[in-house]
Order: sequence, then C-alpha cells, then structure tokens
Amino acid sequence: MTSAEEIWSLLREQVSPRGTETIGLSAACGRTLREAACTAEDMPPFDRSAVDGLVVAAAEGSEIFTVVGEIRAGQANLPVLAKGNAYRIGTGAPVPHGGEVIMLEDAKADGDRVSFLRRGANHIRRRGEDARAGEMVVPAGVVLGDGQIALLASVGWVRPLVTRRIAAQHIATGNEIVDPAEIPGPGQIRDANSALVLAWAQQHGIACAQARLGEDAEALRDRLSPDADLLLISGGASVGRHDYTEAVLREAGFEIPVTKVNARPGKPLIIGRRGEQWVFGLPGNPLSHFVCLHVFVDAAVSAMNGAAPSPVLLSSHVTDPIPGNPRVTWWPAKAESKGLRPLRWASSGDLTALASADALVRVPVSGLAEGARAEFIRTR
Amino acid sequence: MTSAEEIWSLLREQVSPRGTETIGLSAACGRTLREAACTAEDMPPFDRSAVDGLVVAAAEGSEIFTVVGEIRAGQANLPVLAKGNAYRIGTGAPVPHGGEVIMLEDAKADGDRVSFLRRGANHIRRRGEDARAGEMVVPAGVVLGDGQIALLASVGWVRPLVTRRIAAQHIATGNEIVDPAEIPGPGQIRDANSALVLAWAQQHGIACAQARLGEDAEALRDRLSPDADLLLISGGASVGRHDYTEAVLREAGFEIPVTKVNARPGKPLIIGRRGEQWVFGLPGNPLSHFVCLHVFVDAAVSAMNGAAPSPVLLSSHVTDPIPGNPRVTWWPAKAESKGLRPLRWASSGDLTALASADALVRVPVSGLAEGARAEFIRTR
Repeated sequence: MTSAEEIWSLLREQVSPRGTETIGLSAACGRTLREAACTAEDMPPFDRSAVDGLVVAAAEGSEIFTVVGEIRAGQANLPVLAKGNAYRIGTGAPVPHGGEVIMLEDAKADGDRVSFLRRGANHIRRRGEDARAGEMVVPAGVVLGDGQIALLASVGWVRPLVTRRIAAQHIATGNEIVDPAEIPGPGQIRDANSALVLAWAQQHGIACAQARLGEDAEALRDRLSPDADLLLISGGASVGRHDYTEAVLREAGFEIPVTKVNARPGKPLIIGRRGEQWVFGLPGNPLSHFVCLHVFVDAAVSAMNGAAPSPVLLSSHVTDPIPGNPRVTWWPAKAESKGLRPLRWASSGDLTALASADALVRVPVSGLAEGARAEFIRTR
Repeated sequence: MTSAEEIWSLLREQVSPRGTETIGLSAACGRTLREAACTAEDMPPFDRSAVDGLVVAAAEGSEIFTVVGEIRAGQANLPVLAKGNAYRIGTGAPVPHGGEVIMLEDAKADGDRVSFLRRGANHIRRRGEDARAGEMVVPAGVVLGDGQIALLASVGWVRPLVTRRIAAQHIATGNEIVDPAEIPGPGQIRDANSALVLAWAQQHGIACAQARLGEDAEALRDRLSPDADLLLISGGASVGRHDYTEAVLREAGFEIPVTKVNARPGKPLIIGRRGEQWVFGLPGNPLSHFVCLHVFVDAAVSAMNGAAPSPVLLSSHVTDPIPGNPRVTWWPAKAESKGLRPLRWASSGDLTALASADALVRVPVSGLAEGARAEFIRTR
C-alpha cells in the first residue's frame, strides 16, 4: 500500500506540464500562468493623489492659499505650483512636481480662499511604490483568478501564456450502473460518478469526454484514447475477480506504480502512466471517488498545469471529535466560523455528506479530539 | 458611515432572489439549487456488499463451505442461501436475504472449499442506511459543486430547479483610464477594474455586459440598463467635485441607503436600489474594488441567487502581526498550512498583493498580534 505522501511525490516528480498557448485576459480566468508577468513601467507610473483634495507646493508655508484651478484624473499637462496657489485635485490625478496633497476634510474654504487645519500627511501614491519597472508582478505557476487578472491588466500583460486546456477521458464501468435519469432495476444503482467527474472537470477547466461501459475488457481497451492527458476509470479498482482494469492497462502499455493507497475511503486506487499520459483507476463507491479525485487526481492536474504543488494542506480546528482508524482517513467536513465541522458518513458509498462538504480533514490513525488542530484539503 | 455588518443585514433583508429555471445536471455546476432534492428510494436501494468477498447464510455456523456460484454487481435474480453454500460476491453486488458478507482477506480457499478466519464483521451497506425514501438529501440554497451534483445524480434528481443566470452591467468611469492593451499617456493608467469585474463575474456564473466611459453623466445615465439585476460602476464613488454618480443615480430613480462604509480599503462605497435592481458605486482604486466586490457585492449576489447568507466569516490564525487602524481593515492574505499570511500592500491602489491573495482578513481597530485568531473571507 502506497501512502498519500508517496503518491503526491510521485506525481510532482513524474507528471510533466502540458503545452502552452497565448490567450486574451477575458478567457484567462482559471488558467495557469506559465511565464512570469512583469511590469514595463513603474507602478503607479506617476505620483498620484490618493484622495480628493487640494494640492500646494510642499515647501510653501503660507496660511492662506488661493484656489486657482483644478487637476483632474487623466490630465496630461500639469501646472507649476506657484507661491500661494492651490489646485483642487481628484483621486488618482497626477500630482505636479513638489506638490503636497491635503485632503478635503483638512481644508477650510471661503470662496476661492482656502486654509488648512493640518499639513504634512501628504496623500500621494508615489511613482513606483507598488512595483518598479521590470519587476515581476505575477510569478509563473499561478492559477489566474479575478485578482491576478486585474493585476495583469494593470501592467498591460493582456496576452498571457497559459497551459493549454487539459483533455480527460472518463470511463464509468460496472454492470450495475444505469443513467441517473433511469429508474434502477433490481440490483442496479444510478451512475453518480459520471456526473461527479464531469462537474469536477468543469471546475478545473478540463475538457472531459465520457463513456459508460459494463464490464467489458475490450470496450475498456478501445476507450483508452492515446490523445487524452488523463484517463479516469470509475469502478475499475476493486480487488476481486472482476478487476481486469490493471491487466487491461498493463496490456495497453501502462506502467502501474500504484495499486493501493493507505487511505480511507479509497484504498483500491490504481495509478498508471504511458509516456506522458496518466490513468487513475478509481473505486466505484462515490465517496471514495470524491476523495480520490480531490486528494490525488487534483495533484496530477496541478502538475499538468505547471501550477504550484497540490494539494495544499491547510490547518484549522475540528468542532467535534473524529474517531481514528488503522488507515489515515479523509473525513468530509464543512468549514464554518467555529472550525471544521465533521459530517456523518455511513460508508464509503454514502454520498449524503457531500450535500455540504467543502473540505476533507486528514484524520491520523489515532483520531482527533474535539477542538484539535487538523490538516485539511479544500474541495471547493 | 455604514458598518459592514449593517450592509450585510441590509442586503440579506432587502435583496430578493431572482427567478428560477430547470436545467440538466451537466449545466448545473456553480448554480444555486432552489428546491430541496429528495430521494424517492432508500439509499442504498438494497443491501449491498461493501467489499469483494464471499456471502453465506449469517445463521450458518459450518466450518467449511462450498463455493457454488457468484453474485455480481447488477445481478437481478439472487440465490437462496442454502446450508454449506457460499457465493463469491463483488463490491456493490446485492446481498441475498439473510446473507453475511466475509471479505476475501478473511477467507481461506482450497479449490471450491472455503473456510473463514473471522466471521461477524458483515461487510454490508444496508438498504436505507444513508437516507430513507422521501428524505431530503440536498437542501434549497446550496450552490452546486461536484459533490452535490453527484448526490443529485445518485437519487435521479436530474433536472434541478436553479436560479436563472444573474445579469450584470458594469460601467468603468474615469478620464484617466485606458484599455489595458494601450500604452497609457501622461496622467493615464490602464483600466484594471474591467478585467477584475469580468473575471469575478465569470467565477460567479454572472452574465456581465461592460462599458468604459469617461466622466460623462449623460453617458452613465444611458447605461443604467433597467434589465440588469446588478449595476456596478467603477470609479464612481469618490467624494470630490467629480462625483456625480450619486446624483445621476438619484435622478434615475435609485434610493441610496449607503454612501460610505466604515471599512478599509473601500470607504466611498455607494449602494442603491431601484425596485429589484441594485447598484454598487465602487471606488476606482483596484484593491478597494477587489475588497468591495468580495465583501459586499458577493453578499448581494448570494441573496439574488437565493443562496445561504454571504459572506461566510471563517477563522484562522495570522502568521504575522497586522497593524490596527481607526477603520476595520480587510487585509489581503494567503491561506497557508501555518495560517493566514498577511501580504504587503502600499495603498488602496496597490494591486500587487493580489498576485497571491486568496483571503481577506478582518482586522479590528486594535490590530492583530502574531498568531492571533482572526476572521476572514475567502476570495477564491
């Protein structure tokens, strides 16, 4: 049995980043940046007023100033600040050389005459105070969200180089599964894993083709598309008589470094590779499936995207005790203001906890006491 | 100045949920469920084997059994368990009446004869142990992720009722802003807010139309589309001479319950409503913009979606001290295994922290000591 840590190391070391493409910012959300973005100019590019206020010469100690004009945001030509003169200035407007900005709240106006209650606070965002020309602002490997995209826009990095979309092929196997829209007959159950994998792929921006097979080695072999970056086989990892998945994969040229993981739920996990292509044979039980996707397949996807190593183990407190088990358990939980609330699950086939789970708590063999600090993985 | 808590209460009480539509599961990821989903059948629908193993009559104390057949997943007709007989059984296969399942690891086979090292563990997932027929499995108000969608699929809830897509109109204002693809002239800066708002909208599944205007009250008025659920105006909330946003909104029939928020960055926030429609006048500084979107506009979007109240304040420890300020500060931070790491920001216009921020820490007026427990909002 392989430990979770060994699997993460394996994936980090062996899964290679996929190719790249250049795209527009409006299509970049969720994609992984592959080339560090730098600013060509100082940020901000000029001294800017941080407030709505008045600007005078900083060296000028007069009691009373005359408001002689206005400097607006976007204005190109700036006045020279002469003795006794003040200008209204808007937030974001350029500050003339040697200027001091006084906020409106500190000014007392009487017609065009103005005096100040307070000087010296100088509300200016200085040229280059955020970043200097040439400095990196977003490193390679970052998954682009709204904040990163705003930052790229602010430095004119409008055609970022990102990882191309990852292609996955998902194959749900099993004689007992039927389409969720059907009413299952005796001994049958609805295929929840295909819906799970599709939504998971959508959340990751992965293009995912899907097929539902019975237990048919030949049909499975035919679906092992050499074009997919990632192959996911649901229900193909049990240890009994019908587990032909491993044999089919070996025949198809896959090396199989992992056949069992020391984790619960989800023990019978197959991980294989064929060149750059990776396959995961996932347990058929939907909760095991969910755990394996988030704990292990996510790590492979991060590596394919050239992103920071995944999973990121965060830490928080559990609000209730969680029993231990000879195997490390990934326990469904919900992050709440008081900490991580463990959710009830009856078995590895019990999906009901997933109505509210947004985290998987790593439960050590000894269990966790109420209020104990625990590591967890976010699942959404 | 209105407090953040007052704004959240206002939005929770006054923003009405939008209309609904019925969609397929493959399109449901990220949408908000508006009708509780129940299971029509017991979950699981029949006693199922939890392992690959052997099944015998539970009441049968024989030492040696004869393997007389096999029960496979999906099998409709089940044998009666006669004395001395055992059947191989696969994970997920139906268990005949009165059966006991013994895992392979606890069995010792000699041809067709089998004896057991251990009895009584009985690896069966009982009919109805996860949920009973008629029970609710996903409540209304849940935002559907991969786990929830799997759960809906498992109970055949394949046409969920969800909130229709929210429509937003974003208007970036300011004489100083230029398209991010352009090289700014003297006094100009790139418009980062339009890229920010678009990516934010994409993350929320919001349909977002955008326009970039100078400072032109008439053009602004023309863009206040009555069809949008949400209007966002960037750079329209400063307090100086050019702030005509509030006047334009009042003329256009908006009530304005909020004009300033006691929060940093992002003080000059305008919130207005016209019937069911809500408008946010957001500060032009991109970091303020980011904070207002995640702390305030997110709450309005949750209410429009009929989702659970937002924001959810989680708690964790800060790895470094954060200075206090007369106003409550929402400090950009990154969630790491050791806690929340506060990021450097030079001013409310400094976006550079957003390269790695995934949280906003609520910093009380007194500040936070190293290692202190703090409330935070997740931003991605």
